Amino acid sequence: MEPVAIIGASMTQFGQREGKWIQDLLAEAGIECLEDAGVDADDVEHLYVSNMASGEFEGQTGVPNALAHDLDAMPAYTQRVDQTSSSGGAGIYAAWQSVASGASDMTLLVGGEKMTHKTTGEATDVIASLTHPAEYKHGVTLPSFAGLTARHYLERFDAPRESLAKVAVKNHKNGVDNPNAQFQKEIDEETALESPIVADPLRLYDFCPITDGSAALMLCPESVAKEYTDNYALITGIDGATDTHVVHEREDPTVMGGVVESGKGAYEMSGRGPEDIDVAELHDMFTILEFLQMEGLGFAEQGEAWKRVEAGDTERATGDLPINTSGGLKSKGHPLGASGVAQGVEIYEQVVGEAGPRQVDADVGLCCNVGGFGNCVITTIMEAAQ
Amino acid sequence: MEPVAIIGASMTQFGQREGKWIQDLLAEAGIECLEDAGVDADDVEHLYVSNMASGEFEGQTGVPNALAHDLDAMPAYTQRVDQTSSSGGAGIYAAWQSVASGASDMTLLVGGEKMTHKTTGEATDVIASLTHPAEYKHGVTLPSFAGLTARHYLERFDAPRESLAKVAVKNHKNGVDNPNAQFQKEIDEETALESPIVADPLRLYDFCPITDGSAALMLCPESVAKEYTDNYALITGIDGATDTHVVHEREDPTVMGGVVESGKGAYEMSGRGPEDIDVAELHDMFTILEFLQMEGLGFAEQGEAWKRVEAGDTERATGDLPINTSGGLKSKGHPLGASGVAQGVEIYEQVVGEAGPRQVDADVGLCCNVGGFGNCVITTIMEAAQ
Repeated sequence: MEPVAIIGASMTQFGQREGKWIQDLLAEAGIECLEDAGVDADDVEHLYVSNMASGEFEGQTGVPNALAHDLDAMPAYTQRVDQTSSSGGAGIYAAWQSVASGASDMTLLVGGEKMTHKTTGEATDVIASLTHPAEYKHGVTLPSFAGLTARHYLERFDAPRESLAKVAVKNHKNGVDNPNAQFQKEIDEETALESPIVADPLRLYDFCPITDGSAALMLCPESVAKEYTDNYALITGIDGATDTHVVHEREDPTVMGGVVESGKGAYEMSGRGPEDIDVAELHDMFTILEFLQMEGLGFAEQGEAWKRVEAGDTERATGDLPINTSGGLKSKGHPLGASGVAQGVEIYEQVVGEAGPRQVDADVGLCCNVGGFGNCVITTIMEAAQ
Repeated sequence: MEPVAIIGASMTQFGQREGKWIQDLLAEAGIECLEDAGVDADDVEHLYVSNMASGEFEGQTGVPNALAHDLDAMPAYTQRVDQTSSSGGAGIYAAWQSVASGASDMTLLVGGEKMTHKTTGEATDVIASLTHPAEYKHGVTLPSFAGLTARHYLERFDAPRESLAKVAVKNHKNGVDNPNAQFQKEIDEETALESPIVADPLRLYDFCPITDGSAALMLCPESVAKEYTDNYALITGIDGATDTHVVHEREDPTVMGGVVESGKGAYEMSGRGPEDIDVAELHDMFTILEFLQMEGLGFAEQGEAWKRVEAGDTERATGDLPINTSGGLKSKGHPLGASGVAQGVEIYEQVVGEAGPRQVDADVGLCCNVGGFGNCVITTIMEAAQ
């Protein structure tokens, strides 16, 4: 099978996009990505839209059809990909499959979500609906899973509370150099540690915000990519996996089975291992998740990710495994359907050398997009074309 | 590339499924399909869920993760496929891609929707949200598009009003032999013609009902299929295509571009033409749509489908091109995400000779699943394994 390439990417301003609705956001990223890739809308054969809940947030469904119309990409086939908070990663997988199966020679993936017009309570209600009724009907939302897991992790592995704050500080620092990030401001450890408690021991700065935004990627077979550019990325590994939907049924709350399994699949397919990864975007919806993914993906032994963070290994400027160079969900923002796509945009830009002030030395990058509390996870490995 | 096979299928009782929610319905079809295919849940690698609006209808999202859990299919990768009323057909396409790309050697597709706990008005609101705001905000819902198009068709092509009623009568007659159909009762032309007006000239019996239900298909590479059975179907052609999302921008309201384009793609891929099709399931959400799809797929010239219906060509017992042997959406029901999958179930059962009292002589079958008012369409061609 011919390798699948990425030849273009875009990310819109993440944050509170007043007056912009889901259709506007999707069109904005779609148009930018067509321009970035130098592809005519007429040449798009498949168009995937990663979006969790436009119906719930805006009373608007059928957004992929609207986007095909807005981009004037008809008769391109289009479909919505929903895999809750990992809809973006699932979109990369769907787009990859559309090209790898031979169904499409040019696939545009656009992820987006419009959320900030809702109150935090309303948005949390929509997000909580992705968990198992057996849990959320008792009030156990994703932030409370995170709090419980963080408490367990810190106590069991004797990790200092500060190590979680360091994740937030690092990701905020990276976000300063991302003009599309929701927050472009540094914070210090004290600020993080003294912010209001949300789900003890986690505080406000351990959580990503509610965000509007969109992002896009253009995928095609490698032979087609060469007609457009000699600076493209290849998806060399990709896999997705589920863990129990009822979170409390897991044997070890610090092991995310979906991360482990999808990572294993992506490593196997690419012939790479954790030691080959030069840069990674991990799903830091909560700071504790960055630890769990580092461990699940083999970047650290169980219970030891915090040590690598404390040692500075994951810092952009000085570390040997920079994590969340984009600012991560923490400072870049988390518009559900866009987040996984935006992770892909960052890794694509890193491996093709277009990450600007955030550029690190990277030939091989990985992104890991987590749905729910690890209920479904997609891991993607990208490499610079040789 | 290795051909993609279907080795099992299931369809649950369509209708008002009191006390059964989306998770129950999906699990019911999923378990039956595993049994029908003789596949262990452990061997399922990808699991797709066709569902338009569980969030809007039930306040429940993340249903694919719940299904993976309920089937004990973890760590199978899972994702929701939404393409409005064509979510089922889009699911077949997604499942086909997952196998054809080599990502999965065993893919279970389950489509379902739970709708009847809502009032007709509430359900119509959810469905209307799939159309373009420029139209639905002025009150133009899908039934009104159907009424306008039917009026235009009848006048322009000098077709008798009775020809539309004949579609309803035929599909109801077929539904009598489908124990899972919502309506298992014959109607006569007079009943159809005298039923209450919904969108003039269309009346109650020109419309499909609101329905709960689910259906499933099991897909794998042909080499794997042979390990399970020697009576399987092959997907020899499949394609999807969009038309304008703003319906009134179309040049000719009687031509559904998405039907034409997806049909062309599916024919090309399979090396088949309309003359090779022995049986078809068309998306008769409204009776007029059966005419438009017959014409778009080349079963009749423009403006002449009604003549074939009047001549009895599409009758199950006597026609040379039986259409909607399952009862169609009209009598079988239309649980949005399930409908396209159930079309696939009927064509699969017809070509492998398992359609029971509805069996016709068929080696090659076609299904056409329409999203919105032709905004996106997926056409699939299945053939009996040689």
